[in-house]
Amino acid sequence: MSHLQQSFTVRFAYNVFFTEKLFTITNPILADFFRQQANETRKKVLFAIDSGVVDTHPNLLADIKAYFDQYADLVELVPDLIIIPGGEVAKNDPKWVELLVDAVDRYGIDRHSYVIGLGGGSILDMVGYAAAISHRGIRHIRIPTTVLSQNDSGIGVKNSVNYRGKKNFLGTFVPPVAVFNDSEFLTTLDDRDWRAGIAEAIKVALIKDATFFEWIEANAAALAARDMETMAYLIHRCAEMHLQHIAGGDPFEIGSSRPLDFGHWSAHKLEQLTNFELRHGEAVAIGIALDSLYSQKIGWLSDADTTRVLATLRTLGFTLYQPMLDADHSEGVLKGLSEFREHLGGRLTIMLLQGIGKGVEVHEIDNDLVRQSIATLKEQEPSVQLA
Amino acid sequence: MSHLQQSFTVRFAYNVFFTEKLFTITNPILADFFRQQANETRKKVLFAIDSGVVDTHPNLLADIKAYFDQYADLVELVPDLIIIPGGEVAKNDPKWVELLVDAVDRYGIDRHSYVIGLGGGSILDMVGYAAAISHRGIRHIRIPTTVLSQNDSGIGVKNSVNYRGKKNFLGTFVPPVAVFNDSEFLTTLDDRDWRAGIAEAIKVALIKDATFFEWIEANAAALAARDMETMAYLIHRCAEMHLQHIAGGDPFEIGSSRPLDFGHWSAHKLEQLTNFELRHGEAVAIGIALDSLYSQKIGWLSDADTTRVLATLRTLGFTLYQPMLDADHSEGVLKGLSEFREHLGGRLTIMLLQGIGKGVEVHEIDNDLVRQSIATLKEQEPSVQLA
Ligand SMILES: NC(=O)c1ccc[n+]([C@@H]2O[C@H](COP(=O)([O-])OP(=O)(O)OC[C@H]3O[C@@H](n4cnc5c(N)ncnc54)[C@H](O)[C@@H]3O)[C@@H](O)[C@H]2O)c1
Ligand SMILES: NC(=O)c1ccc[n+]([C@@H]2O[C@H](COP(=O)([O-])OP(=O)(O)OC[C@H]3O[C@@H](n4cnc5c(N)ncnc54)[C@H](O)[C@@H]3O)[C@@H](O)[C@H]2O)c1
Ligand SMILES: [Zn+2]
Ligand SMILES: [Zn+2]
Repeated sequence: MSHLQQSFTVRFAYNVFFTEKLFTITNPILADFFRQQANETRKKVLFAIDSGVVDTHPNLLADIKAYFDQYADLVELVPDLIIIPGGEVAKNDPKWVELLVDAVDRYGIDRHSYVIGLGGGSILDMVGYAAAISHRGIRHIRIPTTVLSQNDSGIGVKNSVNYRGKKNFLGTFVPPVAVFNDSEFLTTLDDRDWRAGIAEAIKVALIKDATFFEWIEANAAALAARDMETMAYLIHRCAEMHLQHIAGGDPFEIGSSRPLDFGHWSAHKLEQLTNFELRHGEAVAIGIALDSLYSQKIGWLSDADTTRVLATLRTLGFTLYQPMLDADHSEGVLKGLSEFREHLGGRLTIMLLQGIGKGVEVHEIDNDLVRQSIATLKEQEPSVQLA
Repeated sequence: MSHLQQSFTVRFAYNVFFTEKLFTITNPILADFFRQQANETRKKVLFAIDSGVVDTHPNLLADIKAYFDQYADLVELVPDLIIIPGGEVAKNDPKWVELLVDAVDRYGIDRHSYVIGLGGGSILDMVGYAAAISHRGIRHIRIPTTVLSQNDSGIGVKNSVNYRGKKNFLGTFVPPVAVFNDSEFLTTLDDRDWRAGIAEAIKVALIKDATFFEWIEANAAALAARDMETMAYLIHRCAEMHLQHIAGGDPFEIGSSRPLDFGHWSAHKLEQLTNFELRHGEAVAIGIALDSLYSQKIGWLSDADTTRVLATLRTLGFTLYQPMLDADHSEGVLKGLSEFREHLGGRLTIMLLQGIGKGVEVHEIDNDLVRQSIATLKEQEPSVQLA
């Protein structure tokens, strides 16, 4: 009985570019990317685009065609720009993955060609998955168009689709070859999507960077008023921390800890309980509030800091109580704990706060204290008081 | 305009164990593997098994159950052992991937559980793919039962299924967490499958290791007579070289060279032209003969060495001419060249021999010399002379 040992490392590298009006002919950033790729031959590029972006940006398709016309010597645009319904529906119906895989086949997109996903996190997750499984992985580029996707989902290494209604049941870990964050897209977001993406920045600030939280706290009103420059900084800083976390940790989650998941155990459950009427970021805001209150109740987070967290979330416009949290349903949310445990593979790991900027993992949660935290949220919620 | 640079490496490690009678209760090797996994909780194990192995090993299912009963403290066997039709059909029909993904869901197999594929390369490719896309990748263990899968396909990093009749159109690069090569399985292989797997060993010997080729040459008769000890050495050495190649090169083929593909450009096409009646290894044997003759015709491989290559293949029982190679059809095989170029992404890269043990890449192939090599194979083929 003998054995051979195999081990190797694989290096992944990509840039996240920040720009404005990516497809203006005079913006060289995308063309430069293709020019710098070490390719002897002209490569094909297949676009898959969020319908919600197309609807709000009437010139987008023409702009993309004009841009690639200009750079036709570098890359060959597949003229059939594929448009996919934006939002979770793109991840729910397997026909969209199939449509893309078929396009990869029909247009001869090989492992040295590119698939570009342009849209919100849902479209990017789905397009990234289709690219990852076609030919064992086609190079994919992401052009995120929501706050959430520009500061979190679109710059990371995960992709996924839902399967038989199960959220993210199918997916892979495959980094993009480049990400282009174009701030201009954000101007057409509706307020809920604008706000929702901010929750991820608060999450990462609370567990890792007190200074960043203070900045968010000080700029919450400007963010709520949709100040673009403020948002640009928030996205840049959040993206930077997110990238650092991935690179410094366990990018493909081969081990078990996922410490960037602060506020997420209840958020996942709330999304499901509300049939995804709650945006992910809206649910995360509630989850952050809940776990901050829990951290306060176990004596970790000071009363003053707990108040700051909740006040900042409220200034941003988040609603921190949701009827699905309510007593009658609280087994529902608490069930999220055991589902989270199962998902992690047996051992529960939850991030709590020992202070602002200081996340610490625990492996046990007291259900009663969770219920008390929910009760506090309910008491404090202005809209509930009125009702 | 600014950008953030992301880069990280991911380390992959796994062992390839060589054993006999893996599921004999007194064989601790599999149990030891589970014991050494750093798990706090007992993990689930889901089996997916090749029907061809079940048919030829009537006690297999009972043995597996008895083995896991013995080690029930370590791992929890899902009692529903899933049996999947062996051979290419497992990769052709999407229902088998679906069946596995549904089992992952039904039995609560998470990212810290295990899926074990047991069977030939086809089953392993399909099971590996299903595991790779479920929950963004469930740990998978391979128990290869053919020569090809024990020395090549089952120990590497690729998985795949066919899509709408397109070979390996869907797949990912994901290493197993362990491979268990049990030589006992090989005793029930039919002669064609026994022989076919040897072609990959000849391939790697010819391009990398003259000593190994000399060993195969000297032992060709013993291998043809199904001597088990000789086969065990062949598999071990071939596996070793294959693992070294992966670790030393570009494991996930992010770049473009795939120098272990000697003899494969025509093999892929021949498999397709014969509707996969030709086994992969049988096609590779022809491809090796063809590219060796081509290497001779451009003055790289000596006449004596070319003869040795062809004689060794014939001693092993390979047929080196196939009607699909014939003049009338030769555009068919030559079309394999342009398909291979396309697959590589524009630039053709073909491995040829400058001597036994010395593969060298070229980027151009002369169609006329290919036709002449085919003609030589036809002339020399005993069965064709008779017909
Ligand atoms: N891969 C990851 O690491 C990761 C991380 C977090 C969340 N996610 C996933 O991201 C998804 C949520 O993404 P999201 O929050 O970006 O929302 P979304 O993609 O679901 O989009 C929400 C809506 O906004 C529209 N839209 C997108 N861009 C627009 C723009 N510029 N102007 C106007 N409308 C626009 C869309 O058409 C859609 O109707 C979820 O499926 C979630 O699971 C993935
Ligand atoms: N992933 C890779 O890197 C890679 C590399 C090369 C080939 N492959 C793939 O491997 C597949 C071929 O695999 P294969 O050559 O192992 O054949 P196979 O898996 O197609 O099996 C051939 C037949 O042998 C039967 N069988 C398997 N084990 C047996 C045993 N011990 N006793 C009796 N019968 C047995 C099977 O049921 C089947 O009928 C192809 O799909 C090919 O594309 C993959
Ligand atoms: Zn999140
Ligand atoms: Zn092969």
